[in-house]
Amino acid sequence: MPAYADLAAHFARAAALANSIGILQWDSDTMMPKGAAETRAESLALLRVLHHGMVCDPKVGDLIAGAEAESGLGDWERANIREIRRLWTVQTALPADLVEASSRAVSRCEMAWRKARAEADFPALLPLLAEVLSLQRQIGIVKGEKLGLSPYDALLNDYEPGGRSARIDALFDDLAAFLPGFTQEVLEAQARRPAPLPLQGPFPVAAQRALGLEMMQVVGFDFERGRLDVSTHPFCGGADNDVRITTRYDEADFARALMGVMHETGHALYEQGRPQAMVHQPVGQARSMSVHESQSLLMEMQACRSREFLAFAAPRMRAAFGGAGPAWEADNLYKLYTRVERGFIRVDADEVTYPAHVILRYRLEKALIGDEMPLAELPAAWNAGMRDLLGITPPDDRVGCLQDIHWPSGGWGYFPTYTLGAMTAAQLFDAARRAVPEIPGAIARGDFAPLLAWLRENVHSQGSLLETDDLLTRATGRPLDASVFKAHLLRRYGSEATAH
Amino acid sequence: MPAYADLAAHFARAAALANSIGILQWDSDTMMPKGAAETRAESLALLRVLHHGMVCDPKVGDLIAGAEAESGLGDWERANIREIRRLWTVQTALPADLVEASSRAVSRCEMAWRKARAEADFPALLPLLAEVLSLQRQIGIVKGEKLGLSPYDALLNDYEPGGRSARIDALFDDLAAFLPGFTQEVLEAQARRPAPLPLQGPFPVAAQRALGLEMMQVVGFDFERGRLDVSTHPFCGGADNDVRITTRYDEADFARALMGVMHETGHALYEQGRPQAMVHQPVGQARSMSVHESQSLLMEMQACRSREFLAFAAPRMRAAFGGAGPAWEADNLYKLYTRVERGFIRVDADEVTYPAHVILRYRLEKALIGDEMPLAELPAAWNAGMRDLLGITPPDDRVGCLQDIHWPSGGWGYFPTYTLGAMTAAQLFDAARRAVPEIPGAIARGDFAPLLAWLRENVHSQGSLLETDDLLTRATGRPLDASVFKAHLLRRYGSEATAH
Repeated sequence: MPAYADLAAHFARAAALANSIGILQWDSDTMMPKGAAETRAESLALLRVLHHGMVCDPKVGDLIAGAEAESGLGDWERANIREIRRLWTVQTALPADLVEASSRAVSRCEMAWRKARAEADFPALLPLLAEVLSLQRQIGIVKGEKLGLSPYDALLNDYEPGGRSARIDALFDDLAAFLPGFTQEVLEAQARRPAPLPLQGPFPVAAQRALGLEMMQVVGFDFERGRLDVSTHPFCGGADNDVRITTRYDEADFARALMGVMHETGHALYEQGRPQAMVHQPVGQARSMSVHESQSLLMEMQACRSREFLAFAAPRMRAAFGGAGPAWEADNLYKLYTRVERGFIRVDADEVTYPAHVILRYRLEKALIGDEMPLAELPAAWNAGMRDLLGITPPDDRVGCLQDIHWPSGGWGYFPTYTLGAMTAAQLFDAARRAVPEIPGAIARGDFAPLLAWLRENVHSQGSLLETDDLLTRATGRPLDASVFKAHLLRRYGSEATAH
Repeated sequence: MPAYADLAAHFARAAALANSIGILQWDSDTMMPKGAAETRAESLALLRVLHHGMVCDPKVGDLIAGAEAESGLGDWERANIREIRRLWTVQTALPADLVEASSRAVSRCEMAWRKARAEADFPALLPLLAEVLSLQRQIGIVKGEKLGLSPYDALLNDYEPGGRSARIDALFDDLAAFLPGFTQEVLEAQARRPAPLPLQGPFPVAAQRALGLEMMQVVGFDFERGRLDVSTHPFCGGADNDVRITTRYDEADFARALMGVMHETGHALYEQGRPQAMVHQPVGQARSMSVHESQSLLMEMQACRSREFLAFAAPRMRAAFGGAGPAWEADNLYKLYTRVERGFIRVDADEVTYPAHVILRYRLEKALIGDEMPLAELPAAWNAGMRDLLGITPPDDRVGCLQDIHWPSGGWGYFPTYTLGAMTAAQLFDAARRAVPEIPGAIARGDFAPLLAWLRENVHSQGSLLETDDLLTRATGRPLDASVFKAHLLRRYGSEATAH
């Protein structure tokens, strides 16, 4: 068998294993009875070891070299070899004992974090988090040496191939200079106008689920290749051609689940739209975490919190919950779902204040990985950052530096992708509307086909064929910058915006 | 590492893989969206190949020999080595090309069977079924040579370790001599008495599910280590400490789902009661298919179709569906749920006529594997057997020899375990009541603890420590015979029985 064909067959087998892991992970979060946790952990650990063994199989290096020397391959095959080399380089860089030590430290730290967060006790977490940080730093150093990157950039690179902190610094400094003043303006303008009318619950779970399914159908989710279920922490997971999103319901507030469903559906449409011919290959995967987050935020923030979508959705919401009166008018719903508030918790933040939460975390994790700040100073630095960026001070570490699982679970270098995704979403949606002017009007009729067609062509079907900058340049005419995102915030929330 | 410890660690890893397969298989039958079928098939095929590779790993033979020579091991460890050798002998016996050819033939034949059954067209299935049969025969020959067994006994041995057709012939001939006359008697006696009153539906699915869950709780299902879901064909599956049963609901008839749930719960209690210390080892598995079926039939037929259980359940059924009047009295329910009827379909058969369906299939599959009958004669032989054993003739092959998936899917040698299970259930339940006389009275109060304690001690916690005959002798005082089962049928259905 020629090297490329052999290599592709090998990675299709690895995908069959990754798909097994994806479904078992989904099951752990949605269906698994508690008492099965230990048995399941053993299954997942074994499958991950087997998958790692496949990617790092000694024959893979030779096959990559052989495939790279092969003539007559097309663009997709060349890009696939590039992505396989990328994977293989990173995964073979790490010694097994470092991977294992990190995995053990993370297990211990996650457990301690649940308790420490509940008790707002950072000192109790400190030694365990220090261990995770030190191992993440070592991982960053080892990978960075192989890739010619700083330790932080080497970690970032796992989530955002090609992403570099020098570039993110510039983008985030731009936003950080703009946001505090802008937030103040938005809040003042908001205070001058009448507050939106609250919706009266309770909103039964069955009706919320039915409405969520209806709206997933509206935006184009393919139920032949996916599902909607419930989990404590909403996510989009599953496997190739089997894309499973989750939500959680609050009977006092249906919008939280509904907007969450639209968010995860944005991720899911990306997964369902990956190129079928390469769906089991590395080049057929989503491009990066920032592009992934751009798809969820484009759907939730750009499309589904728009006046157009809410005009379409308002009568359907009324029908779902028997709502009536001025609180259920589209205009009031729009005010409710674009309300801005300063808060301590990232996952509850609105579109305007969210980037402040991310910029704070990005700056702190970069300093910690770079050994520029002692971990013991994290709570103080966190609170100072909150004051600078958002003008509020957390009363304790539970709603401060202990709120997220990312650091205890070893996810260092991930945070910036949220806000890169928000900026990417704005830039893509803007380009889509320029290219296909009927998009907003169609959304107002519940017709997402023109938007989805543009996303399918420009993002989803591209998989990992292009590097992120090239993907964005091809789709929008230029690489990522902050201007379109800022323009979007000004248009929707600025003092000139109507209804605010 | 000493050989036994190494061997046990190796088989714990194999169990982690088998548990992954179990959950993915469950998911395929309950949760998976249709469009994921191909991706899932690839995942399952790969995991099965990896599992087979682990069991047949070249080092296993040496480890078994090393462990067998080790001193100081206990009974469980010795039995575990015996079970591992059993597995390894069978799985290494088959050449890979025979396994693959059989798996391909089965895939083709299953597809053709769905169409052929719908169209009652046996000739269309014949060539594909002939291929499956021929490959099963070859598998039986290869395994049989290694084990010193006839081809049929070698196939049977996979489901029923130690099971032999000579013994089954004697047991089944005994039953076959008894059943046709007995069935006639039962039907005549039944006809002389007033028919039971029918229950008036519809019975909403949500209420059926709630009642099923309530009754699972009553008999002792552990929801911390299991679930109840819906599938087209009910089954008990999942993984170690994660036992998942399924049912399907018919709004016109709740008893079908409820009795099905009790049946699968019987399987599940066995799985949940396997010895924890050996739960991931071969010796910790269920003893055989006949013992497994004995646990489901003991729960469904012996316990839950009894007067005692129905006296307890009747008010709960009334409460679940708002039932009232004489049709909902325990005595009428008992008549309904012990009704005997001659029918063409095995899965719809009652306790009295079920063995006839099984004996027919057993005799036919033994003749076919033994090459004593041309496959083309199957429909005629089937219909002749139905006349002899049940006194009825199928109008076409759809409700005749095409009704079951077992043969098209390569499950030859499985059928006899159903009726061996029914006989074993009767013998175990009889021994349990002799040992613990309060069992029936406790069941009448909805207290299954005494019965479950006896089953836990005598069956579930024994795993595969003993051979089937030894397990039954230890629990009941003697190996399996047909007498207790016949006595049970006479007592419940005979002309002397009250209410019949």
